[in-house]
Amino acid sequence: MAPGNPDDTLIGEEAVIALLAPLAEGHAGAFGLEDDCALLTPPPGSGLVLKTDPVAEGVHFLPGDAPEDIAWKALAVNVSDLAAKGATPIGYLMALSFPEAPARTWMAHFVEGLRAAQTAFGCHLLGGDTDRRPGPLTVSITVIGSVLQGGMVRRTTAPAGATLLVSGTIGDAALGLALLRDPALASAWGLSPAEAEHLVRRYRRPEPRLALAPLLRRHAAAAMDLSDGLIKDLERMLRGSGLSGRLLAAAVPLSDPARKVVAREPERLAHLLTAGDDYEVLAAVPPSACAPLRSAAATTAGVPLTEIGTVEFSGWPEAGSGLHVEGPDGTPLTFARTGWVHF
Amino acid sequence: MAPGNPDDTLIGEEAVIALLAPLAEGHAGAFGLEDDCALLTPPPGSGLVLKTDPVAEGVHFLPGDAPEDIAWKALAVNVSDLAAKGATPIGYLMALSFPEAPARTWMAHFVEGLRAAQTAFGCHLLGGDTDRRPGPLTVSITVIGSVLQGGMVRRTTAPAGATLLVSGTIGDAALGLALLRDPALASAWGLSPAEAEHLVRRYRRPEPRLALAPLLRRHAAAAMDLSDGLIKDLERMLRGSGLSGRLLAAAVPLSDPARKVVAREPERLAHLLTAGDDYEVLAAVPPSACAPLRSAAATTAGVPLTEIGTVEFSGWPEAGSGLHVEGPDGTPLTFARTGWVHF
Repeated sequence: MAPGNPDDTLIGEEAVIALLAPLAEGHAGAFGLEDDCALLTPPPGSGLVLKTDPVAEGVHFLPGDAPEDIAWKALAVNVSDLAAKGATPIGYLMALSFPEAPARTWMAHFVEGLRAAQTAFGCHLLGGDTDRRPGPLTVSITVIGSVLQGGMVRRTTAPAGATLLVSGTIGDAALGLALLRDPALASAWGLSPAEAEHLVRRYRRPEPRLALAPLLRRHAAAAMDLSDGLIKDLERMLRGSGLSGRLLAAAVPLSDPARKVVAREPERLAHLLTAGDDYEVLAAVPPSACAPLRSAAATTAGVPLTEIGTVEFSGWPEAGSGLHVEGPDGTPLTFARTGWVHF
Repeated sequence: MAPGNPDDTLIGEEAVIALLAPLAEGHAGAFGLEDDCALLTPPPGSGLVLKTDPVAEGVHFLPGDAPEDIAWKALAVNVSDLAAKGATPIGYLMALSFPEAPARTWMAHFVEGLRAAQTAFGCHLLGGDTDRRPGPLTVSITVIGSVLQGGMVRRTTAPAGATLLVSGTIGDAALGLALLRDPALASAWGLSPAEAEHLVRRYRRPEPRLALAPLLRRHAAAAMDLSDGLIKDLERMLRGSGLSGRLLAAAVPLSDPARKVVAREPERLAHLLTAGDDYEVLAAVPPSACAPLRSAAATTAGVPLTEIGTVEFSGWPEAGSGLHVEGPDGTPLTFARTGWVHF
């Protein structure tokens, strides 16, 4: 369904705002989207955690993707950062830019996707802007969450000797995107329709690991969400922390369908480790905290955490990478491309 | 200067972040742009005022505009909203999207423009995102300010009988844009180079009326910034407040060059009242507060405020507009287009 479906009524900015306004109910300071600004009264004693991560057609979602999915993903990729920081979502601002006026039906479905996402994540629309301009449909969300003061989990505070953990499974979204671009891959990979659908859903409907947030605050020395590829993001954490690290590729958790694909095409493993769009949490955890954290994650959050490597005691080198990746056969793995390149 | 000037080195995301990082100094919770999120500790007892208003090449600025000017305007149009709400800027998040990797020189000038703007407005870069995608260069800023709790000046609280005031002068940016599109207009309008330059500068370098913020908190019953055109924005304030209003077109303050243009082309007046990009403040003020507010604005803020009309005692009508505009000759003025149409 295209935003400007010709069978449908194209609508203007006032109609778009009217459709969005119900998403602002429940936050008095959104003023029903009838003011120029939103007002947020911070929870007493809290810090606010802020993130902006726009998504654009052709970059983060595909032309013709369902508006519900576009909306879900636009909010989820931002909330995923909050989860990794140990924060609780409060609300978001959203700037929509359309290449042409949207159709009423498309917009109504987009609002439904946002409603589902904000209900799942516990936040409200606070305000925003809509505009028309050439170029791809873009949804620019800025999300605001809260942590108790001092409670934000940092990215660059990984200590030497820490264990590296990731949530869920890695690389599913990359395979889902590959399947959307070439549906014939499903049979080439020997995937059932349900398996293929699982991978596609992981691309379109990332699930921010909000249930992990309180556990990360308690146990993690450092954490970040994985959006640009495990290797690239882990390098960022280590470099920022000034330390080298070791990753066991064979330990990286894969879903059953991803495991099937890698069994048929072992060279796909490097793709899964670098493609991005995972929206899982990477955490550096003191070894003594690993068992209680993993146990609590499995039981209270329902999210598996897997040990994939360690933070070394040696510093990050001046040149080259300080991340040593051991391949499944025990030899070092190197990567032509460590992750998503923004430019 | 184009973002991707071929005579210059094109730079990647890490180099862009390195150039931006100095703008984040002075706000500890920006973590030198090295974390996924920013942390903001709200001033005790305050509410936060939030706004997002992206600018895009070809819509809010022109291809080839100087990067310093693009940067200034991108921040200024957001801060202008804070000023009208009586808020004090704290910081901003910025998502940059480039159609191609930017050149180092372009980016350095862009950073200089941001530095000048954030210094003038008293805020810091907190975080953001950079990406490449097709379409126009886009700068998506979300700005955060603070007010004492209960202190935000609302848009839709204009009371019956209030006087309508605007800051500065109206329509200059519209004329500046017209001059940029057709430089021959300067001589057709009989403008000196300095007068033409004044109008162009008003388009490129809007000045948020931050000095008015404390005065608006004290005296204004309602206020908003003017971005989409005086007529359209005033209609929004009145409709939201549920009241009709009256505007005297001849009372609307014009700069000397704008006055010259209207003297030659009286039909331009409607253009100036509807074109937008003014970034002045519109306020509804109880009549008794007008004299002290105007006096304080002129003396302590250095910004003239002009009475342009009144909020009526009659409600906003179910159909049509409740804004009655009296033209310079005393007859009603109507508008084919009341302001900037976002779609």
